[in-house]
Amino acid sequence: MSKVSLAKGTRDFGPEEMRKRNFIFDTLSAVFKQYGFSQIETPAMENLDTLLGKYGDEGDSLLFKILDSGDFLSNLKNQSPSLDLKDLQASTVSNQIASKGLRYDLTVPFARFVSMNRHRIQLPFRRFQMQPVWRADRPQKGRYREFWQCDADCIGSDSLLNEADLIHILSQGFSQLGLSEAVIHLNNRKILEGITESIGALSGFREWTVVLDKFDKIGKEGVEKEWLDKGFTQEQVQASVPFLAQMPFNSESLAFWQKMLQNSTIGLEGVNELNILLGYLTASGYKGNIILDGTLARGLSYYTGCIMEVKIPDSGMGSVAAGGRYDNLTGVFGVQGLSGVGISFGADRIYDLLEQRNLFPLGEASDCKVLFCSMGEEELLYALPICQQLRENKIACKVYPKAGKLKKQLDYANAENIPLVVIIGEEERMQHKLTIKNLKSGTQETIPVQQLHLHIHI
Amino acid sequence: MSKVSLAKGTRDFGPEEMRKRNFIFDTLSAVFKQYGFSQIETPAMENLDTLLGKYGDEGDSLLFKILDSGDFLSNLKNQSPSLDLKDLQASTVSNQIASKGLRYDLTVPFARFVSMNRHRIQLPFRRFQMQPVWRADRPQKGRYREFWQCDADCIGSDSLLNEADLIHILSQGFSQLGLSEAVIHLNNRKILEGITESIGALSGFREWTVVLDKFDKIGKEGVEKEWLDKGFTQEQVQASVPFLAQMPFNSESLAFWQKMLQNSTIGLEGVNELNILLGYLTASGYKGNIILDGTLARGLSYYTGCIMEVKIPDSGMGSVAAGGRYDNLTGVFGVQGLSGVGISFGADRIYDLLEQRNLFPLGEASDCKVLFCSMGEEELLYALPICQQLRENKIACKVYPKAGKLKKQLDYANAENIPLVVIIGEEERMQHKLTIKNLKSGTQETIPVQQLHLHIHI
Repeated sequence: MSKVSLAKGTRDFGPEEMRKRNFIFDTLSAVFKQYGFSQIETPAMENLDTLLGKYGDEGDSLLFKILDSGDFLSNLKNQSPSLDLKDLQASTVSNQIASKGLRYDLTVPFARFVSMNRHRIQLPFRRFQMQPVWRADRPQKGRYREFWQCDADCIGSDSLLNEADLIHILSQGFSQLGLSEAVIHLNNRKILEGITESIGALSGFREWTVVLDKFDKIGKEGVEKEWLDKGFTQEQVQASVPFLAQMPFNSESLAFWQKMLQNSTIGLEGVNELNILLGYLTASGYKGNIILDGTLARGLSYYTGCIMEVKIPDSGMGSVAAGGRYDNLTGVFGVQGLSGVGISFGADRIYDLLEQRNLFPLGEASDCKVLFCSMGEEELLYALPICQQLRENKIACKVYPKAGKLKKQLDYANAENIPLVVIIGEEERMQHKLTIKNLKSGTQETIPVQQLHLHIHI
Repeated sequence: MSKVSLAKGTRDFGPEEMRKRNFIFDTLSAVFKQYGFSQIETPAMENLDTLLGKYGDEGDSLLFKILDSGDFLSNLKNQSPSLDLKDLQASTVSNQIASKGLRYDLTVPFARFVSMNRHRIQLPFRRFQMQPVWRADRPQKGRYREFWQCDADCIGSDSLLNEADLIHILSQGFSQLGLSEAVIHLNNRKILEGITESIGALSGFREWTVVLDKFDKIGKEGVEKEWLDKGFTQEQVQASVPFLAQMPFNSESLAFWQKMLQNSTIGLEGVNELNILLGYLTASGYKGNIILDGTLARGLSYYTGCIMEVKIPDSGMGSVAAGGRYDNLTGVFGVQGLSGVGISFGADRIYDLLEQRNLFPLGEASDCKVLFCSMGEEELLYALPICQQLRENKIACKVYPKAGKLKKQLDYANAENIPLVVIIGEEERMQHKLTIKNLKSGTQETIPVQQLHLHIHI
């Protein structure tokens, strides 16, 4: 018998992990709903047509492809009836024997969903989606081949009110997860474009931002060096430096930016958007911590307006959530002119952080609240209706299925972290009583059956 | 641009479908938990070693296989450096270029999970699991290539109390889904074995039950004919007929079976198990409808004890849930001697049935309960803190992100099934008021802002 194992880079989630993960998903889901977002789900498998070319060459190479069922070689054989195997390349063959792939993110399937369901959905459309995605990355600590994304997007509206709501969601989400120290870093791609215009490097905008996006990893000096390496002039690089500022998101900071970008129409448009956003946040009583961050670039080229990232101070982690506005996500699927804005929570990083900081709620220690232990078969039968009564009152409980040996039953309750056991021996049964033992405190008392509900405070 | 489409046999779930599906999953999940079952999840991808050979030849051929990443042809090439393509067979090639497959059911991954986590879990272990599975079946009405299973199993205990709890779960689950007319059909594989012993056909047990399993499709005559075709004698077939009885599950029926099977040790063991089960159900106050069904066979050969199926009268559907006891599910992964029993709810069939019968709860018409409509930008700003206040009181709401045109905003609310709109014009804003309009009743009134909470009964 071969040793059984998990597929590389994948994980099982046992009961405790599931309770913790569900705490994250349930918390975020409730926040999304409060802001009028509706859940959707898309299939794990998509046609490769839908996925290929959307994530760059590296993304394409990291797609998991699904072998066509049936005689998948027939396509190949039909094309070249006689061909030596050694002349075949994996990269060309794969597209002829695999026409489906696994979801790589939630954004492209969402764009496909919107394109295919224009008649069914109302615009502006607010959706959230929490599903696994798969990438054939080399697995390493904290990086898996199957991992979860939690996305919320609003599509079909260019109002900055959507950005304001998403910022509320980020703050409220982290706050309810116990991470109220979360800091939102905010910028606008139009400001970045304005900076390159101001320094006379507008045509190098894409390249300039790709370098800036590495700021967290390589620091200010690293960025300056790489700009020079990429062919930006010493003057352009020097002129860029004052923009690499992080300051509180308020009207004074915006006035600074307005002055800095006074010669760039697109830059001023970006500042104006942030002014409107600030107005919405102020009017709605927003209290969270936002940094206007000139070093924030977001690598993904499809962002066109506000961009944001959330960081947790002293976590030693990069961003735990991020997002931004895009102008034409569905264009590639034939639906033009839909502006949207979205955010994504990194569920796996958040899990690790809550675990490190011991922030998962304690009440989640076990799904089962009461274990009934019986000393003999008659006591087991005596326990059944009592257990059933608790269940009808929404208390999760079970009868240990084998009567006898109390120690074994108590060991089981302890190992399963069940907080309360009800012990039924002959005496209890004859006197219509129960013995309740609290496994945390060790206290124990014998009570009439009718009083059980008074002793269940779980 | 190519026309975008879903992968064959897969589905998107929009907001309304998600609300309905979540109603099913949430209902079942709550019931599972009440009986002390804990949720687990396993990865979508498993090593093919884990999956192959577990579902018979047909199952193997229906597995979705995932192309190895990187140069998947190198294995093949190394084996036979020069080989003509036309000499290759898909069936042999596939195992050399694909080493992972998509989950085909939840049972085999659960067995693998138990085998790999013996040190982490306590026996008896009660787990539930609700995840999609994938099969390369030919798609047709009601049959998808991606569909959901909801399984609950108890492993590591041979007590019939587990069967009793699962029967409670079946009844309570369907009852809470609005299908309290659900009927549980119950039998025991040992009784079936006893029947074949009684009729002198014990060596043909497997074949005899495979035929009996078709009873629902081909009827009594069909079964009799096929038994004859398979080589059972006229006498054996005639002797089988009295066992094809359906009767209420009570002690009289069990007495009948006891008499019928008096010459078969294994048969009497099956009857005895049902007697114990009846005792547990009676003691726990079970009130549901159970039929002791001699025609129930369950095709899967791994069942060894009690078997059950749930049917909904007048639904025109086969079973909507099913399960049974198995003695050695984890044996194939190296862990011997663990007896278990499990059930599986057919989420897709249940969805169709609730839809047909209009049983989804009405309160689920929209995620968003209130839409704020503003006549101008100042009114929009006026709406923001009020909207935020509702959210803090856990009421899902949103501000239509573009002020102006009331009709457009009301049309949106209607199309999204949002029950209540709050309209804010200049007059309302100046007087610190709001106009509330109920879109169901059409009633409308203008109230002071402070009274809004009194008017939200959703």
